[in-house]
Amino acid sequence: MVVKVYGKAQAVCPQRVMHCLMEKGVPFELVHVDIDTMEHKRPEFLQKQPFGQVPYIVDGDLELFESRAIVRYLAAKYADRGPNLLGRTPEERAKVEQWLDVEAINYNPWAFPIVFNLLVLPIRGLPANEAEAGAAVDKLNKVLEVYEKQLSKTKYLAGDEFTLADLTHIPATRYIVENCGLSHLLDDKKHVKAWWEDITARPAWKKLSSFVETGGSNYSP
Amino acid sequence: MVVKVYGKAQAVCPQRVMHCLMEKGVPFELVHVDIDTMEHKRPEFLQKQPFGQVPYIVDGDLELFESRAIVRYLAAKYADRGPNLLGRTPEERAKVEQWLDVEAINYNPWAFPIVFNLLVLPIRGLPANEAEAGAAVDKLNKVLEVYEKQLSKTKYLAGDEFTLADLTHIPATRYIVENCGLSHLLDDKKHVKAWWEDITARPAWKKLSSFVETGGSNYSP
Ligand SMILES: N[C@@H](CCC(=O)N[C@@H](CS)C(=O)NCC(=O)O)C(=O)O
Ligand SMILES: N[C@@H](CCC(=O)N[C@@H](CS)C(=O)NCC(=O)O)C(=O)O
Repeated sequence: MVVKVYGKAQAVCPQRVMHCLMEKGVPFELVHVDIDTMEHKRPEFLQKQPFGQVPYIVDGDLELFESRAIVRYLAAKYADRGPNLLGRTPEERAKVEQWLDVEAINYNPWAFPIVFNLLVLPIRGLPANEAEAGAAVDKLNKVLEVYEKQLSKTKYLAGDEFTLADLTHIPATRYIVENCGLSHLLDDKKHVKAWWEDITARPAWKKLSSFVETGGSNYSP
Repeated sequence: MVVKVYGKAQAVCPQRVMHCLMEKGVPFELVHVDIDTMEHKRPEFLQKQPFGQVPYIVDGDLELFESRAIVRYLAAKYADRGPNLLGRTPEERAKVEQWLDVEAINYNPWAFPIVFNLLVLPIRGLPANEAEAGAAVDKLNKVLEVYEKQLSKTKYLAGDEFTLADLTHIPATRYIVENCGLSHLLDDKKHVKAWWEDITARPAWKKLSSFVETGGSNYSP
């Protein structure tokens, strides 16, 4: 049985998980959850993900939610396949964990409301909270200034190799750059821009992008 | 050289790290950072923790920030000493990671503003944002209802053993229960209450509490 990813192809959190599986060349099935009809708030769904959000995965006997916990699990399980995504020593893993937490705690809380207000709400024909979006853009820019410093010292956030710490940033940042008119946030930072071009040129990320565009539901490498 | 923890004894994020070190019986030195005089926003400090927050640690050649990344690193480094805090199999670790992320992403964003508004600001003689605190209490209560269900199935959040997933909750929750007049949030949930009594009865947590109270700066087991 292949890994099942419950989610919606366009949603950023399931994309983290699918991107990770594609980096590792691990087949999976995307099981569509109909967020538009609130399938993710029904009792059956809440049994699996008690906060009513996507994604969760089923891998054999294991059921797991939280996208960043899922990618840590997959990267450890498939440590010997594809790129190393967790660092090679305890100290390297520590740096990966540090920047994974920075993404979850310092970056995503600003990236998420930007995408929500400037992309998701307009798609639904609803008005954006411009003030909230504007404040989030300023906050995100401050975080990116920290990244600019870090990326002037190391090629990737956690060191000289691409890891989960970079991967988790891609899905939301892609929408910010491509769909929210905010590419200048990256363009005016030399090292951030080079990093962004590098990590989005990865074959696995390109594979995911076309999987999403073509409405794919089964991946095998 | 013992591990150096840069922070403030009373602050919840350094407490996570110190509690973990005490669980493992690893000596450390707490190096006081004077938050009241904004020491943590000075250039020298920002070299170590670019977001201007405590804690960070120095362990030999490794410098690390983000409290949850630090405890993961310490629990892995001292896996063979003291209680197992990360799970014994990849699947167990996955569950620990899941609930660690729940704490960081779903719990702390409500716990933190409660402590800030109802404890930190009053100490500084500043007015609390009551509306913000009230909204956060409602949100935190919803999260605790999810915990109540989980803790009716497993003794601890990630399974039948105490892990980092429980540990990271303790410092902020202690202030909420003891100093914010909100103990009913736990008291009215049978399994949450039993869990809370269990995890705060741990010798390492009691040791930390008295270390903080007595203004300790060097710990050796
Ligand atoms: N911390 C969770 C967040 C999940 C999350 O926010 N999922 C979004 C899609 S990216 C969702 O389900 N949104 C619908 C909703 O919250 O109602 C994770 O990383 O898995
Ligand atoms: N995500 C960080 C958060 C650190 C944090 O919020 N630290 C607080 C003390 S618990 C702090 O430094 N507050 C002072 C400030 O932000 O100015 C971690 O877990 O280490």
